[in-house]
Amino acid sequence: MPSNELGVVHTKVDRPDQQLVDRLSAFGVATVHEAMGRVGLMRPYIRPVYPTARLCGPAVTVLLQPGDNWMLHVAAEQVRDGDVLVAGCTTECEDGFFGDLLATSLRAQGCRGLVIDGGVRDVADLEQMDFPVFSRAINAKGTVKATLGSVNVPVVCANALVRPGDVVVADIDGVVVVPQERLAEVVEASETREANEEGKRAKFRAGVLGLDLYNMREPLAAAGLRYED
Amino acid sequence: MPSNELGVVHTKVDRPDQQLVDRLSAFGVATVHEAMGRVGLMRPYIRPVYPTARLCGPAVTVLLQPGDNWMLHVAAEQVRDGDVLVAGCTTECEDGFFGDLLATSLRAQGCRGLVIDGGVRDVADLEQMDFPVFSRAINAKGTVKATLGSVNVPVVCANALVRPGDVVVADIDGVVVVPQERLAEVVEASETREANEEGKRAKFRAGVLGLDLYNMREPLAAAGLRYED
Amino acid sequence: MPSNELGVVHTKVDRPDQQLVDRLSAFGVATVHEAMGRVGLMRPYIRPVYPTARLCGPAVTVLLQPGDNWMLHVAAEQVRDGDVLVAGCTTECEDGFFGDLLATSLRAQGCRGLVIDGGVRDVADLEQMDFPVFSRAINAKGTVKATLGSVNVPVVCANALVRPGDVVVADIDGVVVVPQERLAEVVEASETREANEEGKRAKFRAGVLGLDLYNMREPLAAAGLRYED
Amino acid sequence: MPSNELGVVHTKVDRPDQQLVDRLSAFGVATVHEAMGRVGLMRPYIRPVYPTARLCGPAVTVLLQPGDNWMLHVAAEQVRDGDVLVAGCTTECEDGFFGDLLATSLRAQGCRGLVIDGGVRDVADLEQMDFPVFSRAINAKGTVKATLGSVNVPVVCANALVRPGDVVVADIDGVVVVPQERLAEVVEASETREANEEGKRAKFRAGVLGLDLYNMREPLAAAGLRYED
Amino acid sequence: MPSNELGVVHTKVDRPDQQLVDRLSAFGVATVHEAMGRVGLMRPYIRPVYPTARLCGPAVTVLLQPGDNWMLHVAAEQVRDGDVLVAGCTTECEDGFFGDLLATSLRAQGCRGLVIDGGVRDVADLEQMDFPVFSRAINAKGTVKATLGSVNVPVVCANALVRPGDVVVADIDGVVVVPQERLAEVVEASETREANEEGKRAKFRAGVLGLDLYNMREPLAAAGLRYED
Amino acid sequence: MPSNELGVVHTKVDRPDQQLVDRLSAFGVATVHEAMGRVGLMRPYIRPVYPTARLCGPAVTVLLQPGDNWMLHVAAEQVRDGDVLVAGCTTECEDGFFGDLLATSLRAQGCRGLVIDGGVRDVADLEQMDFPVFSRAINAKGTVKATLGSVNVPVVCANALVRPGDVVVADIDGVVVVPQERLAEVVEASETREANEEGKRAKFRAGVLGLDLYNMREPLAAAGLRYED
Repeated sequence: MPSNELGVVHTKVDRPDQQLVDRLSAFGVATVHEAMGRVGLMRPYIRPVYPTARLCGPAVTVLLQPGDNWMLHVAAEQVRDGDVLVAGCTTECEDGFFGDLLATSLRAQGCRGLVIDGGVRDVADLEQMDFPVFSRAINAKGTVKATLGSVNVPVVCANALVRPGDVVVADIDGVVVVPQERLAEVVEASETREANEEGKRAKFRAGVLGLDLYNMREPLAAAGLRYED
Repeated sequence: MPSNELGVVHTKVDRPDQQLVDRLSAFGVATVHEAMGRVGLMRPYIRPVYPTARLCGPAVTVLLQPGDNWMLHVAAEQVRDGDVLVAGCTTECEDGFFGDLLATSLRAQGCRGLVIDGGVRDVADLEQMDFPVFSRAINAKGTVKATLGSVNVPVVCANALVRPGDVVVADIDGVVVVPQERLAEVVEASETREANEEGKRAKFRAGVLGLDLYNMREPLAAAGLRYED
Repeated sequence: MPSNELGVVHTKVDRPDQQLVDRLSAFGVATVHEAMGRVGLMRPYIRPVYPTARLCGPAVTVLLQPGDNWMLHVAAEQVRDGDVLVAGCTTECEDGFFGDLLATSLRAQGCRGLVIDGGVRDVADLEQMDFPVFSRAINAKGTVKATLGSVNVPVVCANALVRPGDVVVADIDGVVVVPQERLAEVVEASETREANEEGKRAKFRAGVLGLDLYNMREPLAAAGLRYED
Repeated sequence: MPSNELGVVHTKVDRPDQQLVDRLSAFGVATVHEAMGRVGLMRPYIRPVYPTARLCGPAVTVLLQPGDNWMLHVAAEQVRDGDVLVAGCTTECEDGFFGDLLATSLRAQGCRGLVIDGGVRDVADLEQMDFPVFSRAINAKGTVKATLGSVNVPVVCANALVRPGDVVVADIDGVVVVPQERLAEVVEASETREANEEGKRAKFRAGVLGLDLYNMREPLAAAGLRYED
Repeated sequence: MPSNELGVVHTKVDRPDQQLVDRLSAFGVATVHEAMGRVGLMRPYIRPVYPTARLCGPAVTVLLQPGDNWMLHVAAEQVRDGDVLVAGCTTECEDGFFGDLLATSLRAQGCRGLVIDGGVRDVADLEQMDFPVFSRAINAKGTVKATLGSVNVPVVCANALVRPGDVVVADIDGVVVVPQERLAEVVEASETREANEEGKRAKFRAGVLGLDLYNMREPLAAAGLRYED
Repeated sequence: MPSNELGVVHTKVDRPDQQLVDRLSAFGVATVHEAMGRVGLMRPYIRPVYPTARLCGPAVTVLLQPGDNWMLHVAAEQVRDGDVLVAGCTTECEDGFFGDLLATSLRAQGCRGLVIDGGVRDVADLEQMDFPVFSRAINAKGTVKATLGSVNVPVVCANALVRPGDVVVADIDGVVVVPQERLAEVVEASETREANEEGKRAKFRAGVLGLDLYNMREPLAAAGLRYED
C-alpha cells in the first residue's frame, strides 16, 4: 500500500484493538505526545473549529485534490463506527471541503470526527452537532467533484504521516498520530505519565519548585548559571 | 463613480429593496455563496471578533489610509438604518482603526455592523454590545486623523469588490458580497438551496450516502476509481 | 544590566509601587496604550489562550532558547506575589514551552500570568484554572532542558522591550508594556482618558457624530474633502 | 459587464491608445503609483519570478478556479499584440497554473507578460525566454482543466480591481493598475513627476537635505518636534 | 524501519540503480512531478538558497530536533557519493542548522546537496561553492548539539514522506520525491513527457492554440462556456 | 534616553571607535552572531533587497509611524560619515518608506546603508547605486509626512534592541546588533572564531568528520544513540 497512490480505495482497514483506543481516549494530546517520545504531532496550524472539540479513533484516510471534495463522499462509505476521518491534500488549499451535510452523513456512519489539511464551513452547525473537526481554515468557499484522489492510502496531513488504522488523538492543544504498532506501548506510557503528573501537580501546588522536584540546581550550576543581585 | 477615487464622499447611495435584504438575512454565508455560483467571497483572513457575530445589510463603503481612521468618522454620517459599513485600505494595515466609541456612534445611526480589512480593538466591549465586527486583526494600536480617503466609492476589501448598496452577509464562515443587481436572484437561489438541503440532511441522517444521493458511482468509475481489498 | 546577557539570574528586581499597579489594573490595554502615547505595544500575534484572560503586574523576565524551557523553572523561583512572567526567545519558536504543571507552580508563587513569545499547551487546563497566558501559538510540542538563557535581564518580547519591574498589561486587545519610570504618569493619563471617554460615549449614544464632537469638519474641508451626490 | 461572472468570454476589449501605453511604459511602478495618487497597487505578495521582469500593457483578464488552468488556454485566444494577461482566482491557490508551454503560446500571440494571483512553474525557462511573470508563488504543482471561469470580466487580483483594457505596469517594486479612463492623466503626471525628481536627485546628491528641500522644518516644529543633545 | 523513531542511525541504505538516477537527473522538478501523476511534491515554502541550485540523488534522511544540528554531523558519516541529505524536524524551526563548514564536510563525502525543513546560513559561501541547498529560511541563528534525533528513518519533510533511498529532485520550481519502487516508471514517464513537450512547444511557437492542440473547444462548450461581444 | 520616546531628536550620538568598526566589518553576520554568544540577531524576515548588499557601522536610529516617512528626512541630518540608519516602526507596516531619492540624500551624508522594519521601493535603483538596504518588504506604496516619531532613541527593530551608536552588521544571512560596550570583545571573538574556522574547513575538506573533529562520538553514545543495519 504505497503512499500517495491516486485513484484507489482500499476497502480493508486493519483497525486496532478497541479497548486500547478507549484507554487512549482518556488522555489529552500533550500527554500522548510526550508518551510517544515527542514525535507524531501535526503542525500547529491545524486548529479545532470550536474550543471543546475532541476526538480519538482509528484513521480512515483520504487524499484530496485542491478545491475538490469528491473523495470525502467516497470515504464516507468506508467509515466504520468509531473511526476518525483524516484528509490530506496534494497541495495547500484552504477551500471549504466539508460542511454540515457531510458531517451529518459521517455521523450516521458512526464517524467520530474529521482532521483535514484544508478548510471547512458551516462551523456553527458543527459546534451545535458537536461533531469535532480540526482544520487549517474556516472558509465558506465550496468545492467541485471532478478529480480523483484516494481513500485509505497512507497520507501526510499537516506534516504527519497517517496510515489507515493509526490512531489519531485531537483536542485544543493539537493533533497527534499514534502508529498502530505502537498503540499498546503509548497507552501504557500515557497512563504512567498521567499518574506521575498528579503527584507532581500536588507538589507544585504546595510550593515545591521545579528546580528541586527535578533536581535541576546541580546541572544548572554545571552549565555555568550564575546568580547576581 | 470610479473605484479608488480619493477625497470624496458620495452622499447618495442607491439602496436595495429592504424586503429582499430581510429575506437574504435568513441565510448563512455558505448558502449565499453557493447561491451566487461560488463567487463574491472575501478572503478567509477576515474573521468575526466574537464567534456569534452575524450581519446582513447594504454597504456604505470607506477607503482608509494606513494607520488613519479619519474616514470612519466621515462615513458614520452617511450610514442609514440597516446599513453595514465596509472598509478597505489602500495598503495592508492591521492597526486598530475601530473601537467601542465608534461602535456606539455607528449603532446610534442604525448601523448593523462593520467589515474591515484592518484591525480593531475594544473587542470585549464589542461582544458585550453585540455589535458585529469582521476584521483581519485584533490590535490595540490607535490611529491618527491626517490623510483623506473616501466614502461610498467602490472599494476592494479582502479581495472582494464592494460597491455602495451591494449587500454584505457575514457570519463565522466568512463574508460574501451580493451585487445589488443580483440580489433578487440570489435570494431565490438561497431559498431553493436551503429547501433542498433540508431534504438531503434527512437522507444523510438516515444513512443514505452521498455516493448514492448524488449518483456519483458511475462518474467515479468512469474516471477510473478502483476498489481494492 | 545589559540586555540579552546569557547564563545569569538577577535576583533583585526593583518593583514598582503596588498601589500604582492596582490603579493601572482597572484599565484595558487599548486605554493604557493611548495613555502611553501609542508606544509600548507588543506585536498583535501574541493572543490570549482563552478569551477572558487578563493580567496586570510587574515583569519578571526570561530569555529562552528554542525548544528549551529550562529557564522557566529557574524563573519560577524569582517570582513574587503579583508578578507577571514575560518570556522572550533568542529565535522564533512556537514549541509548547509551558503547560498546566508550570502554571500550578507559578500560581503557588503568586504569579499573575504569563506572556510568552512562544507556544504553550494544556490550554483547557489553563482556562479552567483561570491562569492567564498570552502566547504566539498553542502547541503540544514538548521542550528540553539543555541550554542556558537568563532571568531578569531586559528582553525583547514580540518586538517590545521589557525590563524587570516594568508593568505589563494584557487582555483580549493585546499586550502593552509600561516602563516603570513612566508608571505614575500613565496611570494618571489612563484615568483622565477613561473619564473623558465616558462623556464621549454618552454623546455618541445620543447621536452626536464624531465629525462634530471632534470638530473635524473644518480640517476635512481644509484637506480638500468634497461631498457629491 | 458585471464582475465575477462565470462561464463567459468577452471577445471585445476596448483597448487604450497605444501611444499612451508606450509613454507610460517609460516609468517604473513607484512613479506611476505616485502619479495615480497612491491607489491602484496590488498587494506586495505578488513578486516577479526573476528580478529584471518588467511589463506594461492593456489587460486581458481571466478568472481562474483553484487548481485549474483551463481558462488560461481560453484567454490565449483573446490576447492581441501588446496585451498583458491578468489572472485572478476565486480563492487563494498557489498551484502552478502556468509554465513554459503556455508562455510560448502567449508570446506567439504577442502577449507581453502575465500577472497571476496564483503560482507558476518552469521559472528558469521563463527567465531564459525573458517572458515577464508576476505571481504569488513558484510551485511545480500542476493543474487540471475541469471547471469554467471567465475571460475579460472585471477581476480582483491581489486586492486590485482590473477591468479588460485597464493598463497594468509591473516591475520589481510591484504591480499597479491604471484605469483606462485615467490613462492620459496618469501618463502626464508620471512625466511631470519624473522631471521633478531629476532636479531633486541632483540637489540631494549635492548634500541638500529633504528638511530644506521640502520645507519641513517649520511644520515639524509646529508639530512639536524638539532637538536635544 | 518505522518512521519517527528517535535515537537510531540506520547504517544500511538500499540505494537505487545509479543509471536510473542519472537519467532522472536530466529532468526538472515540474516534469518529474507530472510524470509522478502530480504527487510527491514538497510544500513550496522550501526554496533554493541561490537561483541556479539543482540536485538529484538518493536520500540519506535525518530527523532533527529544534535548534539542534547534532544529527547532521551524525548523518555526514552515512553519506555515500551521489547522495542527497534530506532533513525533517520534529517541529517548525527556522534556525540556521547548516552552514559552509558542514557543506565542506558533506562535499568531501560526495554529497550532492541538502534539502532541509529548517534554516541555513553562510549562503554566499554555499553559492560560491555551488553546493545546492533547499531550505525554508535563511537565518544566521546558530544551533546546539544536545538532543538526539535519527538518521535514515523515514521522515516527513515539508509535508512529503521521504524514505532512505528515495530519489529527490530539486530545482528552482521546488522539490519532488520519487519513491524508489517507482523510479524506473517515473524515469520513463519523464522521458516520454519531455519528448511530447518538445513537439507541443514547436506548435505553440507556430501560433497553434492550446484550445486546438488539446481539443478543448468541445468540452468547453459542453461545460457551458459562451462567447459574447 | 528612554526607549520609545516620541517627538524628540537626540543630536548627540556616542559613536564607537572607528578602528573597531573597521575590524568588525571583515566578518559576516553568522560569525559575529556566534561571537556574540548567539544573541542580538534580528528576526529573519529582514532581507537584503539585492543579494550582495552588505553593511557595517554605528546606528543612527529612527522610530517611524505607520505609512509615514517624515522622520527619515529628520534622521538624514543626524547621519555622519560611516553611519547606518536603523528604522523601527510603532506597528507592523510594509509600506514603501524609502526609495532612491532618500538613498541619494543619505549617501551624500556618508550613510552606509539602511535597515528598516518596513517596506522600501526603487530597489532596482538601490542595487544600481549599491546602496545596501535590508527591509521586511519591497513595496511601491508611498508614505505621508504627518505624524512625529523620533530620532536617536533606543528602538526595537525586527525584535532586536538597537541603541544609537550600537554597531549593526548585515549581509545575506541576516542582521546582527553589537551593543557598543561589547564591541571590542566581539571583534576579538570574531577574529578568533574565523581563525579557528579556517583550520576546521581544511580538515573537513580532507574528509575528517565533525563526529571526530568535535569529539562527538562519546557524548552521542552516552545520550543513547545506537547504530543498526
